[in-house]
Amino acid sequence: MPSAVSIREVGPRDGLQNEDPVPTEAKVRLLDALTATGVGRIEAVSFVHPKAIPQMADADEVWKAASKNPQVRYSALVPNSRGAQRALDAGFTEIEVVVSASDTHNRRNLNRSTDESLDDIAALIDLLHNAGARAEVIVATSFGCPYEGDVDPARVASIIDRVVADGADRVAFGDTTGMATPPRVVAVVSRVRERHPDLPILLHFHNTRGTALANVYAALQLGVTEFDASVGGLGGCPYAPGASGNVATEEVVHMLHDMGIETGVDLAALLDAARLAQEIVGRELPSGVLRAGPRLPDMR
Amino acid sequence: MPSAVSIREVGPRDGLQNEDPVPTEAKVRLLDALTATGVGRIEAVSFVHPKAIPQMADADEVWKAASKNPQVRYSALVPNSRGAQRALDAGFTEIEVVVSASDTHNRRNLNRSTDESLDDIAALIDLLHNAGARAEVIVATSFGCPYEGDVDPARVASIIDRVVADGADRVAFGDTTGMATPPRVVAVVSRVRERHPDLPILLHFHNTRGTALANVYAALQLGVTEFDASVGGLGGCPYAPGASGNVATEEVVHMLHDMGIETGVDLAALLDAARLAQEIVGRELPSGVLRAGPRLPDMR
Repeated sequence: MPSAVSIREVGPRDGLQNEDPVPTEAKVRLLDALTATGVGRIEAVSFVHPKAIPQMADADEVWKAASKNPQVRYSALVPNSRGAQRALDAGFTEIEVVVSASDTHNRRNLNRSTDESLDDIAALIDLLHNAGARAEVIVATSFGCPYEGDVDPARVASIIDRVVADGADRVAFGDTTGMATPPRVVAVVSRVRERHPDLPILLHFHNTRGTALANVYAALQLGVTEFDASVGGLGGCPYAPGASGNVATEEVVHMLHDMGIETGVDLAALLDAARLAQEIVGRELPSGVLRAGPRLPDMR
Repeated sequence: MPSAVSIREVGPRDGLQNEDPVPTEAKVRLLDALTATGVGRIEAVSFVHPKAIPQMADADEVWKAASKNPQVRYSALVPNSRGAQRALDAGFTEIEVVVSASDTHNRRNLNRSTDESLDDIAALIDLLHNAGARAEVIVATSFGCPYEGDVDPARVASIIDRVVADGADRVAFGDTTGMATPPRVVAVVSRVRERHPDLPILLHFHNTRGTALANVYAALQLGVTEFDASVGGLGGCPYAPGASGNVATEEVVHMLHDMGIETGVDLAALLDAARLAQEIVGRELPSGVLRAGPRLPDMR
């Protein structure tokens, strides 16, 4: 088991992107509350076309107004080179781009084949590197696709081979609609690890069918130390049927802290941020730790 | 990993006991629907004083009217020798009794100390054995107590030593308010296994803080093959603050089947039973698999 884990908080982006639009000032308040939790990384915004995702139309204003803490690594998600340029102009140096392992999901999400997206990503990586930024490639539907069903871990691994050859600095595996179970996590991670032992990998789980923390536990046993999570369990995936929220950050942090694994996050501050997230979206969020509180009241 | 797991469905008892009272005929319909799922064991009713738990006042009528399948092992929970006699008179041969590892929880739940309860249980085991029935002792708050906090696994193990010496046929560990995390499961199970290698043990998790399936996964890795679960995630524990439902049977079965572990349960029939449970209690139940469906539509 690792002694420490790096959490990337994705509520401001992946979370709010999949909720009804909220005011700019509310986004800024949530970002600032998350910055205050001690979390090491925050996916702050995405730079996408406002017609495609109106929830992120004010990304520039949000980012400009947010308090930046030099201890926190902030990142932005982009769909293409235009978005990448906006992210670079806004000052981001860590940038993520998504491709789906499943061709059908990629077509519905990005209107092109997985291979076409991989060609785009190769060019995007060059653009980012030339600007001195780092590129993370997120492989969506890595553990299953709502349209195609099971996804062969060999296909996921070959996508990784391709993006590593094209210069990706880091990769992430997205369980876009909550289809992962522990053996599927083991199959993908161990195959990629075998081929790219030094490649930084991050796992992004949704708790659609209750397996998110089981998947985290299985990944920890393989030595994985980077996970996405979303405050309060905000968000999901609008392009996939039956999708529901990202795993709640406080559920991940709560389990890790009880296991003696450090995250740097102050659980009480994180729960404050989760309550704020709930207030902002105006509905009860699907986080057990938010609802019931930590297993011990004074747990940090 | 085991190749097969035995699920005990506890929705009709632990589930309905913690919901607003429902009509007798609804309980019978739910029991019959669960019998039809192929699940190997069902905790059907409890024989408790109707003033203490009005939800179970009609236990005799429910059990009389339910369809019994000889392939299914039905059990009843009892609080004392009077309840045990009622269970025996009703024809049960598998009977469960509860004691809390934490003294404060035991006092609030049963109005006596853990040691006093253990004395009562010794007499109860004799009563059951003399009638040809088997006795399971469930140790509540095995992974933490909402009043006392952490519970020492050594205390849990010493309770097991005592009940085994008194003749218990089987034991179960209850995560009464969802305070278990994987290392706590490992600590309790491995300690008990070391001292009683042949003792059948069963784990009962609540998903209060999202860790239930992680705990199941950790237990599977230790070779545990018996788990309680509640259809739809019905129920909780009325004597504990912040408690929420049992882990949903369909979430456990869904993960196990995807892992290639057999349960004998027909997932589609189980989801029918979960929909019925939801209709009976008249509110949305906290089951991700019920809400989103299985990861593949044709999954059994």
